[in-house]
Amino acid sequence: MNNSQQKILAHVQRNILLSDKEATEFLSILSEVKLRKKQQLIQPDQEVSSEYYVVKGCLKAYYVDINGDSHIIQFAIEDWWISDFEAFFIDKPARLFVEAIEDSVLLALNKSSLETLYKRIPKFERFFRIKTTNAFVSLRKRILSSLQKNSKERYIEFCRDYPTMEKRIPNYQIANYLGIKPETLSRIRKELA
Amino acid sequence: MNNSQQKILAHVQRNILLSDKEATEFLSILSEVKLRKKQQLIQPDQEVSSEYYVVKGCLKAYYVDINGDSHIIQFAIEDWWISDFEAFFIDKPARLFVEAIEDSVLLALNKSSLETLYKRIPKFERFFRIKTTNAFVSLRKRILSSLQKNSKERYIEFCRDYPTMEKRIPNYQIANYLGIKPETLSRIRKELA
Repeated sequence: MNNSQQKILAHVQRNILLSDKEATEFLSILSEVKLRKKQQLIQPDQEVSSEYYVVKGCLKAYYVDINGDSHIIQFAIEDWWISDFEAFFIDKPARLFVEAIEDSVLLALNKSSLETLYKRIPKFERFFRIKTTNAFVSLRKRILSSLQKNSKERYIEFCRDYPTMEKRIPNYQIANYLGIKPETLSRIRKELA
Repeated sequence: MNNSQQKILAHVQRNILLSDKEATEFLSILSEVKLRKKQQLIQPDQEVSSEYYVVKGCLKAYYVDINGDSHIIQFAIEDWWISDFEAFFIDKPARLFVEAIEDSVLLALNKSSLETLYKRIPKFERFFRIKTTNAFVSLRKRILSSLQKNSKERYIEFCRDYPTMEKRIPNYQIANYLGIKPETLSRIRKELA
């Protein structure tokens, strides 16, 4: 078993227990994907047939509006999942870019393999129910924070919730994700220093 | 079996099949809640131990900011689920109000009963995985629409996605949900008429 496989098994088994046979079957449907920094994994209008577990690295999912401005929707580091989830789950063309911020190693889980996995090893329903619930709650929390908190509070919350990301992601991208201007973030960071 | 029970069973069985025994067990953990129009089901700082299936009626979940302004986060009509999901899932005090827009009949599903249900009838993992995935995708879609579409396009999308809601919910509340001014919505509706 290679390092990527060990990592995802440990990740899954924090929520469900697998027999050796089940673990082997699960690993057999994953395929490794390597990306260089700035390389794009998903582009708008593509079909999105996989979601991706991050073994190593850092990625962002972002939307580019008609004025050409980017809006970062999600970051992902080790042990996170990333994709254009809307496209993946409801079989629509992608609207997002997914791009590596660092050299990254991912494990791709294909949608049809996942559907088969649910039938063969139903406890994966539990695993992905828990993962999706967490993702849903984070998104709700982010929407509420944008209504409830000022820029400084949102930055402090981000640093507290995602301490590792804060160190690895360029400031202007964190500012973009938080919906604040890079200058404002610089000022906030000086105030907090 | 009463009408509320029939409705939720039909709702669940669109995604999973239950034996008579399983159906009876599921129904036994639900409790009916009736609300008058404008009555509040959840208030900020309360503990939220249940999520609610809407048998009949219409509700909204909203956040009130420090200036006293309301921000509607979710509407729910028949066959939808509503709660302060962040509070419900991660055991935090509520930050939202949940309030009836019409006289409503709900079925409450308690969190500890739900955890027991997952153990006893694991196919409910599948049911709630699918429900949560849909909720997650809707939320992502809403965030993208706010970046991608102008007020008129967002209103048209809302009418298309939720035709029944559009007829039942006061215009100023739809405007609030879409993040546009009531006057702007009136103008848009006249243009479209």
